[in-house]
Amino acid sequence: MTKNIAIIGASGYTGAELIRLIAEHPQMRIAALVANSKAGKSVSEVFAHLRHLDLPDLVTLDAVDFAGIDLCFCALPHKTSQEVIAGLPKTLKIVDLSADFRLSDVDAYQKWYGNPHSAADLQPEAVYGLTEFYRAEIAKARLVAGTGCNAATGQFALRPLIADGVIGLEDIILDMKCAVSGAGRALKENLLHAELSEGYNAYAVGGTHRHLGEFDQEFSKIAGREVKVQFTPHLIPANRGILCTVYVSGDAQKIDASLRAAYAGEPFVEVLPFGEVPSTHHVRGSNYVHIGVTADRIPGRAIVIAALDNLCKGSSGQALQNANLMLGLPETMGLTAAPLFP
Amino acid sequence: MTKNIAIIGASGYTGAELIRLIAEHPQMRIAALVANSKAGKSVSEVFAHLRHLDLPDLVTLDAVDFAGIDLCFCALPHKTSQEVIAGLPKTLKIVDLSADFRLSDVDAYQKWYGNPHSAADLQPEAVYGLTEFYRAEIAKARLVAGTGCNAATGQFALRPLIADGVIGLEDIILDMKCAVSGAGRALKENLLHAELSEGYNAYAVGGTHRHLGEFDQEFSKIAGREVKVQFTPHLIPANRGILCTVYVSGDAQKIDASLRAAYAGEPFVEVLPFGEVPSTHHVRGSNYVHIGVTADRIPGRAIVIAALDNLCKGSSGQALQNANLMLGLPETMGLTAAPLFP
Amino acid sequence: MTKNIAIIGASGYTGAELIRLIAEHPQMRIAALVANSKAGKSVSEVFAHLRHLDLPDLVTLDAVDFAGIDLCFCALPHKTSQEVIAGLPKTLKIVDLSADFRLSDVDAYQKWYGNPHSAADLQPEAVYGLTEFYRAEIAKARLVAGTGCNAATGQFALRPLIADGVIGLEDIILDMKCAVSGAGRALKENLLHAELSEGYNAYAVGGTHRHLGEFDQEFSKIAGREVKVQFTPHLIPANRGILCTVYVSGDAQKIDASLRAAYAGEPFVEVLPFGEVPSTHHVRGSNYVHIGVTADRIPGRAIVIAALDNLCKGSSGQALQNANLMLGLPETMGLTAAPLFP
Amino acid sequence: MTKNIAIIGASGYTGAELIRLIAEHPQMRIAALVANSKAGKSVSEVFAHLRHLDLPDLVTLDAVDFAGIDLCFCALPHKTSQEVIAGLPKTLKIVDLSADFRLSDVDAYQKWYGNPHSAADLQPEAVYGLTEFYRAEIAKARLVAGTGCNAATGQFALRPLIADGVIGLEDIILDMKCAVSGAGRALKENLLHAELSEGYNAYAVGGTHRHLGEFDQEFSKIAGREVKVQFTPHLIPANRGILCTVYVSGDAQKIDASLRAAYAGEPFVEVLPFGEVPSTHHVRGSNYVHIGVTADRIPGRAIVIAALDNLCKGSSGQALQNANLMLGLPETMGLTAAPLFP
Repeated sequence: MTKNIAIIGASGYTGAELIRLIAEHPQMRIAALVANSKAGKSVSEVFAHLRHLDLPDLVTLDAVDFAGIDLCFCALPHKTSQEVIAGLPKTLKIVDLSADFRLSDVDAYQKWYGNPHSAADLQPEAVYGLTEFYRAEIAKARLVAGTGCNAATGQFALRPLIADGVIGLEDIILDMKCAVSGAGRALKENLLHAELSEGYNAYAVGGTHRHLGEFDQEFSKIAGREVKVQFTPHLIPANRGILCTVYVSGDAQKIDASLRAAYAGEPFVEVLPFGEVPSTHHVRGSNYVHIGVTADRIPGRAIVIAALDNLCKGSSGQALQNANLMLGLPETMGLTAAPLFP
Repeated sequence: MTKNIAIIGASGYTGAELIRLIAEHPQMRIAALVANSKAGKSVSEVFAHLRHLDLPDLVTLDAVDFAGIDLCFCALPHKTSQEVIAGLPKTLKIVDLSADFRLSDVDAYQKWYGNPHSAADLQPEAVYGLTEFYRAEIAKARLVAGTGCNAATGQFALRPLIADGVIGLEDIILDMKCAVSGAGRALKENLLHAELSEGYNAYAVGGTHRHLGEFDQEFSKIAGREVKVQFTPHLIPANRGILCTVYVSGDAQKIDASLRAAYAGEPFVEVLPFGEVPSTHHVRGSNYVHIGVTADRIPGRAIVIAALDNLCKGSSGQALQNANLMLGLPETMGLTAAPLFP
Repeated sequence: MTKNIAIIGASGYTGAELIRLIAEHPQMRIAALVANSKAGKSVSEVFAHLRHLDLPDLVTLDAVDFAGIDLCFCALPHKTSQEVIAGLPKTLKIVDLSADFRLSDVDAYQKWYGNPHSAADLQPEAVYGLTEFYRAEIAKARLVAGTGCNAATGQFALRPLIADGVIGLEDIILDMKCAVSGAGRALKENLLHAELSEGYNAYAVGGTHRHLGEFDQEFSKIAGREVKVQFTPHLIPANRGILCTVYVSGDAQKIDASLRAAYAGEPFVEVLPFGEVPSTHHVRGSNYVHIGVTADRIPGRAIVIAALDNLCKGSSGQALQNANLMLGLPETMGLTAAPLFP
Repeated sequence: MTKNIAIIGASGYTGAELIRLIAEHPQMRIAALVANSKAGKSVSEVFAHLRHLDLPDLVTLDAVDFAGIDLCFCALPHKTSQEVIAGLPKTLKIVDLSADFRLSDVDAYQKWYGNPHSAADLQPEAVYGLTEFYRAEIAKARLVAGTGCNAATGQFALRPLIADGVIGLEDIILDMKCAVSGAGRALKENLLHAELSEGYNAYAVGGTHRHLGEFDQEFSKIAGREVKVQFTPHLIPANRGILCTVYVSGDAQKIDASLRAAYAGEPFVEVLPFGEVPSTHHVRGSNYVHIGVTADRIPGRAIVIAALDNLCKGSSGQALQNANLMLGLPETMGLTAAPLFP
């Protein structure tokens, strides 16, 4: 039976990506689209690429009757998301794409995001949304917290390796290359085409990027002790994609075997032949993750590289994958489209 | 019942696009992939973005048993395509994506393409593949000749206007902006990233582009007299998309009405509100065409702009749309995915 | 003797381009940089690519003593420019890069720009800054009005042809392809990298672009009668460059000869061999203009294409060329650097 | 007195960059341009952006009379360069831009480049061309070996730190992001715009990139013991630029102080304020290097980032800087132009 879906925060890139994906989903229909600042407009006016779709107009949150909604995606900025979700019916299934429920420790949330958690009572029921590792919990959850896009990429490379104890925990470095849509549709000078194209740079260097909160939480949980990684994101002149180059100590063959075992049977995670390298070109617009392992010339050192599409597998595609589980639908439904290349 | 599909010329961009589209088609399966120069390789080795698909390896043409094939796409370079198709079973349904059967006059073919037609006996049964205008003939055809991508774009803007007699025929100018994938995967210096990105230029200026053969044939047929247009293509630093700015004489409101009437009910052609302009951003990766009409400040002059994705609606998407018709399937099957933006 | 230069509006792209050029000019030094909104900052903070230069900090307009200034560039938005220039010393040499003094008819100014001219008393002494055609007047001028970047490009292609009477005046069409820096450093959604790269579109279609005011003024003056052209700009995913494809009626050989004669001896204007086409790739970062003529297959129709760098020859380079004349320096001084390719 | 310059290998990107730079050099003139495969052509035919220059046509090597040449740049592929240089007059001053004389140990050359050194007798007189560190030797040299572009970038970040003993030598990681012009003008599929733009990937992972030969040689020489670094290059969709993110152990403040001391007074090396990050945007088209240091949240760990333009400071600009020294000219002559932004 077709499920009725609401999207709150439909005028940003992750909102648009949700609409794009759900439009092709055989068991979902979009029943409500909320975007307070653009309420009254049609989707075509905000996203002309969705012009051909038969969609409800954008409305304010007040205008939605949630009684008939089976699941709600919340694609709002952090902080706003907590406030909005706190006001939604307590029985409504929700996939939140913001950072607001990712950190189980509300003090850690305040540390990384700067504001106190405003829905601390909901935090305990939130399940961390990295599907491949929290599948069972997500299927039973009412509230799922989508992961950070960088956080997802790094975890795909590292979780099995930490769990299997095949790498050292003291010298993990994640050098990440992030496409610009990860920064959203905000009007900032450094996101202008003239400022961004034809050049690139690091940002949030030295351990200040908020997704470190997720790395710290998850890697420490797996290891059973505190794990702190180094993580440097770079802004690359491309629209979609995250490439994470991870430097670790350990035996490259064991690392490869660990990843291969962990992802055997996973529909969306491809471990490349040993020594091959993934490219963001080959996952763009899709829900697939590519991972490759290479041994370094220095014995005992290896490089693990993971690539995914930040808007899809890193955000809206992951959210839909989780929603499928929460609604009892096949996990891959509506998500198997191949990447767009070239 | 699932149809068995062969693709000849599977290692180029239109071949990859066909695989991408057919992989999601509910009633087709890829039974054979031919790429003589890369025979023996897996699809992953040639197109890593298709790595997750369960596909047959690339083979030579000889290795294919066409007995079990319901329809064959031929995505070869022109001239080669004629030779290959001449050797295929005479009962096999074929959608040819090359230029080899687009021009009904074999002398015109030789004039524009420089070589004599080598399958002139097959030409009479070839149907011109612009679906929206040859739907009935395509449904009955054995051999369909896919249109040029530029030729398709210009015709979407102009065919109804010529048919309805709402524009002058002596001063039609098509200024076209073409993304680079239209030039294929050939190793040419001007297609290198370092030569192409961050700049742009016209090419084939002055009426030498081969797609003029199609414009001449089709526009003259509609008008019942010779029509010759001016057409200047430009190479733009983007991977997908064609934007065609058409300058015509005529009443802009009548022009708008003509297009609106012609495309009412068409699933893939969107006529924008009067005065709005299409963008290739909003059709990328999809089978949709956007068309917009604006009146010029000079009375009696109008601008019609059409945008589509050259690899999809301009080539492989159109081919699949035609194949659906030829196989008795719903015309839109497998083609309704929304564009990828951003 | 070294000339003291002030730049008002130093924090925009044309301001930065002026600094870049003047830094290498052997007879100029930058004495004052005005940017009200960023006063107190160093140039490095606003333009990190100029970090190595020894420059004065940005100041407010009030802080500048114009007594020691030999020439002032004004790189402000239109309307603001008029107000500021009206308050400057009446003997100060000024090159204005805005639109505020380009149109000799103040009513035409109001028509195209929407606000009344606020310095109408200064308008009569303003000289139109298309150097190659107003050289003598510019050398004697106190106030020079830099042209629009699109306006310059179109005029390079057309002025000699209208003057020589070798083209028809009723059917001139300029299809222009403009890089994004022409839109300035303003924070607009359509200028974001994620919205702009990988796609393109027309804008200001139908005769609404303000640079038509310049075309109307200049072409009518040359022809001695009213000339109205069609002009459609397109926004292209590149940072610098304007390519103008001009469709005209006339004999292509005569057109070529007219341009060749007009630009013989011009240091910055290159007329390509007949039938060759210019590219924005080949003028990027330089003060050069490339022009090429091709005959169309339709007798009596020709295509003229001009390419230049909008920030340099289309704006700041032109401004410096004019300043050289006004200060009695060699016209090409500081402007002969080759384009940057790739 | 003006120096006569020859360029051998004038049809590649580094050759074009040399022409661009020398055209503005007040004390050099280009006397001969060699490009065997394009001999007989004008420079305009090969590089249309240099059309305005008055240059000799391209000739074969045989056609050059080296008697009147003061200095020769050799911009050929490695291996070819050795063979050609071996045949040049033994008194001719040469700056070689290839890899052929960078490694003082001819066995190391064979190990990294796969072919035996064919001019081993010349190797002892070759001086490694990293100007800031070999200034005195270069000024006296007859044969200077230009560095690898990646090798230069990494050394700017690390040489002072190794020399001053402020970092650990066992865990140095260089994660490098390289623009495409570094791969030259070769016709390779992965360098096509359609394959490269909008995505990115690592290559030569695991310690196989040839520039490691230079790192090993130079870092070991400075340290007085063997130093082996990890180095992963990535291909980024941009035309010019290298950004090197270096992960080291050490005190960030001492690291910053070491770099600041080393580069005090260097005309082309800018050490940014502590905690700021360089961008390739801000060095494009110039001979400047930007370096920034940041402390990581993990005590004892720091990140050093260096950015330069691979074609200029990383290759042809460096070569010209060395040529200036070899000819007794001011080191910065012809090299002080500001970067092009945007």
